[in-house]
This record gives sequence, structure tokens and C-alpha cells, in this order.
Amino acid sequence: MERRQSDGPGQTRTSHGCKQRFEAERGGPAIACSPTPISRLLGSESDPDQAAHSTDGQERGPRRHPGCWKMLTVAMCMALLGCLQAQELRGHVSVILLGATGDLARKYLWQGLFQLYLDEAGKDYSFSFHGAALTSTKQGQAFVAKVLESLSCPEDVAPDRCAELKGQFQRLSAYRHLATSEDYVALSKDIEAQVQHGGLREAGRIFYFSVPPFAYADIARNINSSCRPGPGAWLRVVLEKPFGHDHLSAQQLATELGGFFREEEMYRVDHYLGKQAVAQILPFRDQNRKALDGLWSRHHVERVEIIMKETVDAEGRTSFYEEYGVIRDVLQNHLTEVLTLVAMELPHNISSSESVLQHKLRAFRALRGLQKGSAVLGQYQAYSEQVRREQQRPDSFRSLTPTFAGVLVHMDNLRWEGVPFILMSGKALDERVGYVRILFRNQAYCVLSDERWVADQSQCLPRQIVFYIGHGELGSPAVLVSRNLFRPSLPSESWKELGARPGLRLFGRPLSDFYAYRPVREQDAYSVLISRIFHGRKDSFVTTEHLLASWGFWTPLLDSLAHEVPRLYPGGAENGHLLDFEFGGAQLCFSQQQPEQLVPGPGPAPMPSGFQVLKAKYRESPLISAWPEELIAKLADDIEATAVRAVRRFGTFHLALSGGSSPVPLFQQLATRHYGFPWAHTHLWLVDERCVPLWDPESNFQHLQTHLLQHIRVPYYNIHPMPVHLHQRLCAEEDQGAQTYASEISALVANSSFDLVLLGMGADGHTASLFPQSPSGLDGEQLVVLTESPSRPFQRMSLSLPLINRARKVAVLVMGRVKREITMLVSRVGHEPKKWPISGVLPSSGQLVWYMDYEAFLG
Amino acid sequence: MERRQSDGPGQTRTSHGCKQRFEAERGGPAIACSPTPISRLLGSESDPDQAAHSTDGQERGPRRHPGCWKMLTVAMCMALLGCLQAQELRGHVSVILLGATGDLARKYLWQGLFQLYLDEAGKDYSFSFHGAALTSTKQGQAFVAKVLESLSCPEDVAPDRCAELKGQFQRLSAYRHLATSEDYVALSKDIEAQVQHGGLREAGRIFYFSVPPFAYADIARNINSSCRPGPGAWLRVVLEKPFGHDHLSAQQLATELGGFFREEEMYRVDHYLGKQAVAQILPFRDQNRKALDGLWSRHHVERVEIIMKETVDAEGRTSFYEEYGVIRDVLQNHLTEVLTLVAMELPHNISSSESVLQHKLRAFRALRGLQKGSAVLGQYQAYSEQVRREQQRPDSFRSLTPTFAGVLVHMDNLRWEGVPFILMSGKALDERVGYVRILFRNQAYCVLSDERWVADQSQCLPRQIVFYIGHGELGSPAVLVSRNLFRPSLPSESWKELGARPGLRLFGRPLSDFYAYRPVREQDAYSVLISRIFHGRKDSFVTTEHLLASWGFWTPLLDSLAHEVPRLYPGGAENGHLLDFEFGGAQLCFSQQQPEQLVPGPGPAPMPSGFQVLKAKYRESPLISAWPEELIAKLADDIEATAVRAVRRFGTFHLALSGGSSPVPLFQQLATRHYGFPWAHTHLWLVDERCVPLWDPESNFQHLQTHLLQHIRVPYYNIHPMPVHLHQRLCAEEDQGAQTYASEISALVANSSFDLVLLGMGADGHTASLFPQSPSGLDGEQLVVLTESPSRPFQRMSLSLPLINRARKVAVLVMGRVKREITMLVSRVGHEPKKWPISGVLPSSGQLVWYMDYEAFLG
Repeated sequence: MERRQSDGPGQTRTSHGCKQRFEAERGGPAIACSPTPISRLLGSESDPDQAAHSTDGQERGPRRHPGCWKMLTVAMCMALLGCLQAQELRGHVSVILLGATGDLARKYLWQGLFQLYLDEAGKDYSFSFHGAALTSTKQGQAFVAKVLESLSCPEDVAPDRCAELKGQFQRLSAYRHLATSEDYVALSKDIEAQVQHGGLREAGRIFYFSVPPFAYADIARNINSSCRPGPGAWLRVVLEKPFGHDHLSAQQLATELGGFFREEEMYRVDHYLGKQAVAQILPFRDQNRKALDGLWSRHHVERVEIIMKETVDAEGRTSFYEEYGVIRDVLQNHLTEVLTLVAMELPHNISSSESVLQHKLRAFRALRGLQKGSAVLGQYQAYSEQVRREQQRPDSFRSLTPTFAGVLVHMDNLRWEGVPFILMSGKALDERVGYVRILFRNQAYCVLSDERWVADQSQCLPRQIVFYIGHGELGSPAVLVSRNLFRPSLPSESWKELGARPGLRLFGRPLSDFYAYRPVREQDAYSVLISRIFHGRKDSFVTTEHLLASWGFWTPLLDSLAHEVPRLYPGGAENGHLLDFEFGGAQLCFSQQQPEQLVPGPGPAPMPSGFQVLKAKYRESPLISAWPEELIAKLADDIEATAVRAVRRFGTFHLALSGGSSPVPLFQQLATRHYGFPWAHTHLWLVDERCVPLWDPESNFQHLQTHLLQHIRVPYYNIHPMPVHLHQRLCAEEDQGAQTYASEISALVANSSFDLVLLGMGADGHTASLFPQSPSGLDGEQLVVLTESPSRPFQRMSLSLPLINRARKVAVLVMGRVKREITMLVSRVGHEPKKWPISGVLPSSGQLVWYMDYEAFLG
Repeated sequence: MERRQSDGPGQTRTSHGCKQRFEAERGGPAIACSPTPISRLLGSESDPDQAAHSTDGQERGPRRHPGCWKMLTVAMCMALLGCLQAQELRGHVSVILLGATGDLARKYLWQGLFQLYLDEAGKDYSFSFHGAALTSTKQGQAFVAKVLESLSCPEDVAPDRCAELKGQFQRLSAYRHLATSEDYVALSKDIEAQVQHGGLREAGRIFYFSVPPFAYADIARNINSSCRPGPGAWLRVVLEKPFGHDHLSAQQLATELGGFFREEEMYRVDHYLGKQAVAQILPFRDQNRKALDGLWSRHHVERVEIIMKETVDAEGRTSFYEEYGVIRDVLQNHLTEVLTLVAMELPHNISSSESVLQHKLRAFRALRGLQKGSAVLGQYQAYSEQVRREQQRPDSFRSLTPTFAGVLVHMDNLRWEGVPFILMSGKALDERVGYVRILFRNQAYCVLSDERWVADQSQCLPRQIVFYIGHGELGSPAVLVSRNLFRPSLPSESWKELGARPGLRLFGRPLSDFYAYRPVREQDAYSVLISRIFHGRKDSFVTTEHLLASWGFWTPLLDSLAHEVPRLYPGGAENGHLLDFEFGGAQLCFSQQQPEQLVPGPGPAPMPSGFQVLKAKYRESPLISAWPEELIAKLADDIEATAVRAVRRFGTFHLALSGGSSPVPLFQQLATRHYGFPWAHTHLWLVDERCVPLWDPESNFQHLQTHLLQHIRVPYYNIHPMPVHLHQRLCAEEDQGAQTYASEISALVANSSFDLVLLGMGADGHTASLFPQSPSGLDGEQLVVLTESPSRPFQRMSLSLPLINRARKVAVLVMGRVKREITMLVSRVGHEPKKWPISGVLPSSGQLVWYMDYEAFLG
């Protein structure tokens, strides 16, 4: 009876003895020998879908020749004999669907399991399916029975055959109440008994967690302690998002799960990876390597758009949505996954999960950090009211949760530097559509008048590759390639050319401008993923490293936006151009000025951007105070203005920069937003340096290199690092590094007067590397001195106060709450450089300006 | 009678006493007090054109209020009283049109002079017009009479009034035979007599050279010696192109003319500068400064297209055309003028000719040098046959003269770096049109589905500014600004909004997408320019400096293309996409592969590009030989491949580069075409250095800086210049620079084995800075040595042969005919480094490859 049950649909089509070798699962104990239905490989006439396909007049891939395929089949059979022989008993796989009565299970997962059964049973494995939940056995059974009745077969299966198959599947499936650890022990025993009974070998167990995250730990503990399969069989646990709320919570969750499962046992689902167009990105890049090699880089790509637009809103789901918002719900996971598939270096062998995952991780590491200015946020107008209603919030409640976000992502690598990756998703928009669009630059001039341009010949018409994920004008997944690019190669057994659709325009062009392909058979993402779990394709899932990398990327942005007020939008086509956004450098902003608020704006407190830059006096010199971003922007502007003036007057600009972490955002600001800076005429000097080699991460110069120099073009000999590393030793008195630097300054800087010296102020009142009670540098003749710091690395080189005070302009940048106390103190002391070196900064004929953020100045 | 004649059309409209101050001409002796007809300023009802204008419903400029204008007039009159008082006698201007019976004179110049008379006479000046030529007096008179009869008045002048005005003009105009120096003396006397007779003061003389260039010198000599006006009156000579054939001939011509005229006396005409849309470029930039400030740079401009397409071919003009070709005929002058107007920094005061000219010259200086690869050339198919027919050439004659050219121009300044300026012109194309199009980048993402985009709101629709010079779909000059950019400001007295033209599309968009303006009154370019000559507006003309700068820019390209075979094209719409071109970096090429030649291709000799790269052996090592461009390209490719391999294996790539001029094209190649080079992991070392400071133009490092480093991003501490300049002195033994460099190498380069050393070979067999009979560096332990060169600067620092021979790979680059002899010699000698240091290059375990161009290898 058991044997009978385990016979599946495949049996009627092909012999059991013929298999394709499958890449052995890394770390998994079993060898899966048959990943795809052999019927597919054979392309037999008995498959109506295949038959229809091969008569398709548009099909341009290699035609299948029955004789040829038979030969191939024979060859495969022989080659794979060894695989067969290794197996003695038929393997059995148990699938335990946790949360079997939930929405996701009802809508997708049971259907996916049925599809798995249709595809795999009758080959090497027998199956049993356990729907488990906390629901009582009776209720659960009734629910499952109802779901199983509603399952559908693929289109090409005749109704009676379908009924037969459903019957088989129903007999293999059962509901069970699963709550206590005893329940888990019992489940495990039942599985073992079933395996023994059937004369089978246990191959593995799949636990599909379709339950809320708070239930994870308990279930995981029970599985680990009571429900692991015996030796030689694998365990796979399938986890559904959310995987935490930010980097910390994701890490905690991962650590917790890591206590129960090994990394290779965990399959975190991002169902976007199962979408057919998304799953096709890497194979497409692989199969069109030659054509794409010359195109897939910053030299040819103008932009990449990764878009998921929805027309629905969050009504009925606000309790979840209010906690997450669009960035956590869509961008952090789905769109980021897609981004990495587009941007990653293509592994030589994309069928190696390990290699794909490694390359993907490298793409994550190349992501440039996001800033507050990297995103625009919106919220559809009715949202707050929905939250109030659904969550019984008071009338005064206004949500700050974004339901729309546009984010500009850049990658710091040679391939993609400078190419904007635009990620956008929102609810209540004018259409439902998802796509990835790679738009290539127009680097042609077309002599012929534009109305005469021909789609496949004119290089001036848009050139784009689109992975159309679904919905929209097209209504199905598709891969589109502009005809003026190249004719792509797609696997003809699974993708076919789209028929003509007169009048249909996509991305501003008629469909006829594209080579356009759609799947031969549309498949639900969960069916795809369940099959991949079964086959151990870890690259279709989110690994822990990968997950943490993604949260590591998104969390700083989420934090910085936590109190940002999203722009309200009416919803649907009425949004007009309200949500359009523009970018310049790394900054993103809405194209249209904020119109009048549609409803009174929320506002827990005045927002930082509401503050103006404050001008005052500090120690009798001008003080500029603002929030950090504005302060840095103002300082950078002032430096540029000073530079431009100096170059105009003297031909050069001598700028001395301090080390430490405060100037880093300034360097970044100068590097990325001040394209007009006269770098070619600027000399860069160091105010101070730690006695470490220049390439040491502790080196001030290394900061300068990383955050500024590598982004700009200063002539080599205009860069003046401090000579702290001479004759392979650091700051040795006898190497006379300080004297060398002083004479370099004297030789190049007129009157040793820098045009601008940028200083900081330590919590102890030090500035440059001049510390309280320093025996040198606070007065005297020396221009450059060696000093001792109270903290590591102790040895320093520094400009002296007398040299600093010769500058035409000195700017002191002070940021952060930790500086509050010294700021207060120094505001009251006189000229006491021995105690507080900063108090000795007083340019003899130049100007001193203080730049302090509100936290340093106001506390 | 004379007085009567000099009364002009202005007299009937306004009083004489009311003038506007005009910027005094620099260096010119006379002060022109009335540059524009006062009737224009008054906008009186008696002017039918103005009246029509002010009832134009589309006019949005400030309306003229009669009362207001009267007040303004009174104020102006008072303010300008001083100007009036300075003048006592009425000024007289003589215009001598040389070549008065020629084509240009007949078509444009007489009409232009008539327009001048209409605009200016009756104000402060009286005029006489002398049509002069070598034609006999009788024939000339008849010709002139006929031309004068055919003159036309502006549309707004009634027929009888026109007849009256023409009569006045005819009476002021006369033909005279002008050949000998006596003729010039006589002319001068006649003018003086006329002035005296009329109780006038001579204001100035305009000599308009509408004669072939070979006649210039004689005429110029005669004017200078016999026909200059007396003291206090100015001389202006107007010259028509061609102004030479290349830099040298232009310079000769300029020197020759400079012997007769002062710079400020010469007005070289480029009639494009008189085209209304071209003449509007600077005023447009000036009047829309605020809007354009944020747009007019590489951060926003995607490309600039400067285009002049013709449908006609050169038939009937081949004797001229064959000598010039499209680059000299159109690009070097017209399109370059337009380019500078677009690209130049905008002077604060554009009404200052001097300031405009200075800024234009600076734009010229920022032009990046063109290479052969910067252009594509074409020739319409019938051209050679036309030349054969018109010039009685043999049947075998094939012309290489281009009738079509596309050129990619880049500017090396902060504003425009990286922005492609595309210059294109051709005969026998599919349409006649001229325009400058500034296309802005799309830096927006539009959330709304594209079919809902609104022209003035969507930032995703094309954003462009077009100066439409004429012809084409529009049929008139125009200024077009995309509605999603800004509403431009144009002078409403001379430009008005274009009416709707349903169905008309320009640059892919309906006309309604643009704010579109056309001149209130279309004016011929020569009329505009003749008026500007009269008013001394030198900025509408080509100065000598300017001319030489332009030839300096174009001549190297013309030289390098002299033997290039242009692509043949059928002409008209049949050209299809044959002439479309694409660019990548600084290279331009046709988009389509060369189809089969339409007629047998010409070919004086096999073209360089026809040669393959040759592989052979030299001194038992691999030799690669090719023409210079291919050789450099191959070497650069090989270096990149070596670098990529080294970085993959070891993480770094240590490259030692030689000085001298040979590597410069290699550096340029690496800088501009090898974007995939792993610079971030490359260490750059010097093979040898001259004992001069690093920033000295003689320094090898300076070459490296200029041609390579400033274009790429190598971390500062990966750059290793030789320490030839220590303690403010050069290559002092006691500073131990060589030892320092050697220990730096030992510390950083594993086993002191460079991954690649690039060497050259001197005509004396030296390599690096190791010269024959050098006492050091040819053997021994020293890695780096100080040496003596036989030529200045004598002192050098160099890697030693033993160090070089430790390299994994050594490439020797030898180029040019001057190396032929040593190449021959060295091919035969054994290992004799004392005599020929290059013979000592023999990597102990690495590879040696010779790269020689054909001239060095084959002679």
C-alpha cells in the first residue's frame, strides 16, 4: 500500500532508471540524483505542452530532433549509472508545513507542495506531507481537506488524470496538531515508522516555517531536540520573512536560529527569487555573456531601475505595515536581491550555488553607504486614517511610516562606479508592475533625420534590457532586449518569443522595438522555490551572511529616516508628478516642490531640516552652528569659496587638513558634491599625523586617501603627507621628518601662511596633535613638531601653534555631544594654550571661524 | 546736393539730437554715438512691424507704454548730451566693396550695404559706397546698376518709399575700376574731396575684400600705402574666408596682412556669426543666466550637437571643394565658432567685445587635441566623378576629399570635462538643417507611467535647448527650450513666440513640448555682420589669435586624416544608417560595419590599418610589430592583461615605466581606453629619472602625471617617483636617493621582481638611463644607480640591469625611423652591455618581448 502511494505521475512517462547527475549538495548527506523531470529532457510527444511549443512558428532555438534526443538520453543513462548503483533503498522525504492553516499556506504553499509531488514523485523519492499547526486536529483536518480539494493541476493535465493525481497527493498528506515537544517526538517517530514500513531509506525532512517570527524559537528548539532525521538524512528548515527589523534584530534572530540549525540547513525565502523573470537574470547574463561583456558596466549603462509599483494600499494589513513600511517590506529584501543579481560579477559557473552566493556577497560589500539624502519617502493620504481605524489610535495620531520610497544606490567598484541604481516601490500608485530595467547610454549620433530611424539599426533609439517581473501593460513575466542591442539567447524549452501586440508601448517604445520573450509556462514563485529547496539550491535563498549584509546596508538609512515626515500623496493616477524624483551626485529629492500639505502634517518635534544655520560669536570669533549635515555642507561651501578666491588671486590654494573622524563627512562632502573645486591648483597638507605608515588604517593620510583623494584629481606633487615614515622607521628624531616638512612648507607656501587650516578640538582641549602641557609646538620657532598623545598611537607629528596662527584662515570643526563640556569650558577661558591648546589658536592676521553642530554647541 | 543725398530714412522718423552712448571702440579713433536706429528704441506707432508686434497675443515681454517711453527718451537725451557736444562736423563713412561684381557681392553684400544705409544714414553719418573691381568701368557700372535695381526693402516699407530709398542709395553708390596703386591714390583723393565738399568730417573707411585670397596682398599693400584715411578716422578691412588651409598657411597669411593692417583694423568674416540663432547664443546665455547657471556644465549636459546638414552636393564647386573638404569648409570655422559660443565661460558683460573675445580664446585653449580616431569621414558616391568631369582628371582618379565628417570634441576644463561635443556636417544628406542642440541628462525617475507624463512637468521627457540656425522642418531660425526646463527670457523686440504647428515634431518631440521663439524679422547674416562692422563689434569676427587657435586645433587632425579613405555614401535618404557614428572615450567610429564598397575604393597604397600586427622573433625573443597606433594598442592590451593576472595571483601589480617621449602615447592609451585596468592595486615605479624637480616639464614623472596619473586613480602611496630631489638639491650622492629607492623596492616588491618593466632603446643602444660605457648599473649588486647622460640634463637615476633582469616580464618599445639603424645593429650583436646596454636586457627567469613599429623594424 505504501509503495503504491509513493508511485507518482512521473512513472507513467518515463523509466526510473534514467537520471541526470546533480551537483552534490554541499554538506548535505544525501546525493540528489534527479532534479528535473526527465520527461522535460526528453521533450516527448506525449507532453502536450512541449508539442505545442515545437510547432510554434516563432521558436528560434535549436529544434529538438527525436533521434538526437534518444541518443542523448542513452548517453546520459550510461554516464549516470554510477549514481544509480550507489542507491539501494528508495529515499523518502517528509515535508512538514508549519502553519498549515495560515493564509500563505492556503494560497501558495499547499499548491507548491502538490507541484513538487507532481514533478518529483515517481522518480527516486517517495513523499509524505504533514500539515501542522496549533489548530485543533479536527479543525485542522477540515481546513487541510478543503485546501487539498481546491488544488489545481497544470493546464496540460487532463481532468481525470488531475483528479487521480490529487487523490494520490491527498492520501500522502495529513494534518497534525503540533504544539508540545512530545508532539515533535511523536512526529519524528511516525516518520521513522513510515520509512521502515515502506522499506524506504529516509532521505530528508523539510520543515516549512509558515508561522509568525515569535513562534520560531520554540519550533526550532523542538525540531532540533526531537525531530531531526537520523544520520545520513538531511534537514532543511524553510523560513519566511520578516527576518528581523534591522541589523541588530536580524542578528539576534540569526544567532538564535544558529543555536538550533547549521547554516546549510536554513533556507530563508525571498519569494522574489522565485519569480520567473528574476530567476532568469543570472541565466540570461550567463547565456549572453559575449554580447553583454562589452555592455555590462559603467561605460555603457546609464542607469538601472528596480521597480515594484502597487495599486493596492495597506488597508487591512496596517498592524504589520505600520511596523515595517515600504523599505523593510520591499526594498531591503526583494529589490536588493534583484540589485545584487544585476550588479554581481558573473561567476564562471552559475550552476554552483556556492560560487553564486560568494559573488552576491561581494556585490553587497561594494554597495556605497546610504545617507539620509539617498532616499525620498511618501505616504498615501488615507494611510494614517486606516491605521487609526484598524489599531484604535486616537484622532491625533499621524503615522510616519512610508508607503512609498525611492532610493538611489551606488556601487563602489570599477564596473559600476557612478551608475545610478534606482530602487522604487510604493502602494496606491497608478499601476501595478514590477521590473528591472537596464538602460544603456546613447553614445551615438544618428545622421539620418529621426523620423527615418529603424528600430534594429538606429543606435540612437533607446537601448534597454528589461526583466519584466509581472503585471503592468504586458500582464506576464517577460525578458525584453532592444533590437538595436543584440538578439538574446534564452532557453527555448522554458522561454518563447512573445507574439505581436500592436499598439502596446513599453518604456516609451512599441513592443516591436524589442526582442521579447515570455515563459512557456507561467509558474508561481512558491512552486519554483519549493522545488529549489528540494534540490538544495541554496543560491535561491537568503543566507545569514547575505541577510546581515543587507541589513547592514539598510539599517543606517532606516535609522536616519526614522523621524522623517513622508510626502503625502493622494493615490492612483492623481499622484501626477508629485512623487517623481531627481538625483544629483548621491542626493535624491522630489522634482516638485512640496505642495501644500493635503492634511495637516504630523510633527512630533521640529525636524532638523527645519533649523536654519545659526550665526553667532564664540571666543570673539564668528561661530556657525547647525545640524551636522547642514554644518558640513556649509563648511564645504566655505572651503570651496576660499579655494576659488585663493586660486584666482595667487594661482594656488594651500589647505592643511586635520585627522580624526570628524573631518570624514567633510571629505566625503567635498569629494562627492563639489565638482567645481579647483583641485588641480590645490596643495593638500596635513595638520597632524600619527606615527604609522601612510597605508595604515590608523593613518590620517589614509583617511584622506580613502574619503577624498581617490575621488578627486590633485597632482601627485601637490599632496604633502607628513614624513612620519622614513628609512623604514617611524618618527625617529634623527630622520628629521618634522624639519623636512617644515622646510617643504617654507619652500612652497608663501610666508608659511596656509590659505586655510582645518582644526578640530578634543574633549581635553587639544587641537592638531598639540596636547595639554605639550613641551613643544605651543610656542617657539618650530613650525612642525613631534609630540606625544595620551592615547595610542602615542607618537604624533603636528603643525605648531605659531605656524597655525600664520594662516590666512583657520576653521575649527567641533561636532557631537561629547564636545559639549569642553565647548562650554573653552568659551570662558582666556589665552591658556598650556592648559587648553585650542585656546592658543588665534591667527595673527588671519580669520578664525568656529563650526559647531548643535549638539556640541547647545548640548 | 551732397547734404541732401546724405539725408537718410531715419530722418523722417526721429530727431537728430537724440542718441545712445555706444561703447567706444578699442583703439579706434572715432566715437560712434548711435549704433541702433532710434526708431527701434522708441517703438513708435509709425513702425508697422512694431505695431503688429505689440498686438501679438503671444507676446509676454514687458509691454511698451507710450508715455513711459517718452519719458525714457527724454532721459536718454539728457544723459547723452555730452556725446553730442563732442561732435562738431557730421561724420562721413566710405565703404569700398572690393570684388563688387562677384557672386557674394551680388547675392548678399550690396543688399547688406543697402540695409546699413537704411539703418544708419540720416543719423550721425553720411555714406558713400564704392563698388570696386578689376572689371572695366563700363561693364562694372552696368553690373552695379543692375544689382542696385534688384535691391529689396524690408517688408514693412511701402513700395514708393522703397523706390525713394533705393534712389537715394543708388545716388550714393558708384562703380570704379581699381587695379593699380594710382587707382587707390585716386580713390583716396576722391573721398577726401567728397568729405571736404560736403562740409563733413571723415569718420572712417571700410574696405570689404570680396576677392580671392591670392589678391589680398596686393590690395592690402595699396590700401596701406595709398588709401588710409587721415588722422582721427578709422580703417576697417573686411576679409572673407578662406583664411588659409592649415595652421602654417593661416599664419603666413596673417603675418602678411599684419604687415599692412593693425589687428583692430581687420574684420574676418565667418558669416555663421551673423546667423540670427547663432548671434543669439551669448545674449540668451546672458539673459537666462540664473536658470542656466545650474545647468550649463558636465553635471547636467549629456551632449552638445553642432550640426550643419546639406542636401546639395559640391557639383560645380569641386575645384574649390577638392582643395578644402568639409572639415576646412564648415567645421574649422562655422561649427567651431558655434562651439566656442556654447562652451566659453560667460563674461560678466557680454557687450564688451574685448571680454567676449578673451573668453572665447580661453575656450579654444581648453579644447582637447584631436586624434585620427576623433573623426569619421564620408564622401558621397558621385563626388569623384564630378571632380573628374569638372577638372578633367583621368578615369582612374579617386578623390579622398571628405564631403561628410563627424568629429568628437572634448574640452579639458572643469565645466565640460567628459561632455561630448559632436560636430557634424555633410553634403548630399537627407535634409538641409543647421542647429546646436544642448541635450541635458535625465537625472530623474518618474513614478507615473510614461503615457501620463505632462510636457512641462515630467523631468523624464527629453530636456534640451536648441538654437535652430535654419531650414529643416521649422524653416526659420528659432530658439527652443523644453518646457520641463524653464521659460526662457528673450528680447521681445527681436524674438517672438512661434505659433502652434500641430503635427510638427522636432528632435523626437512635438513642437508643443518647447518654448519656441523665432525672430520678429528674419535677417540675412551679411546684413547683420555689415552692421556690426560699422559698429566696430569685433567679437562678431575672427581675430588673428582666434584663427590661429582654431587652425592649431584642426591641423593635426587634418594631417592625420590626409590619406584616410572616406566611407562612400549614396546620398539623400538612401544613406540610411550608413553614416551614423558612435563614440566610446575619445574614439569615434561608424555604427555599421563598412558595407561592400559601392564603387571600387581608391587607394594610393595599402592603408596602415590594413596591416595586421606582425609576430616574429628578435634577438631570440618574441617581437611584435605593427603601425604605431596598432602597436601602442597591442602593448596597452598586453600590459592590462599582465596587470589583471598579477592582481589575481598576488593582489598587486608592480609596473616600472620608462621616461622619454615614446611611452607618452602608451600612457594616453592606458588613461583613456583601459577603464578596466586594476589601478587601485597597481604600484607605479620609474625605470629612470632626470635629476630635476618632479614638477619640471623635463621630469619623466611629470610626463607620467600629465598623461596618465591625472586620468586614473592610483592610491598615493602606490606611486613611487624616484627621489632625485631631496633636501632641496638634486641627486646629491650624500642624500642616498638611489639607495632609498632600492630599499623601497626591496621592501615592497617581492624578491625585487617587478611584474613588468617597460623599456625603450636609444639610438646609441642605451636603455633606461644606462648609457654605453656607464661605470655603474650594467652589472654588480646595486639595484638603483646614479648615471651620466651624454645629453642634458646630464644627471640621471636609473634602475640597474641586474634589477631589470629580475623582472617577470620586460617589454621594450622601439618606435620611429630614427631607431632603424640601431635596431639593425642590435639584432646582430651578442651580449655586450658595455657597448650597447640594451643587449644586456635578458630577464633571468622572466620574459622579454620587443614591441617595434614598422618604421623602426622595417625602416
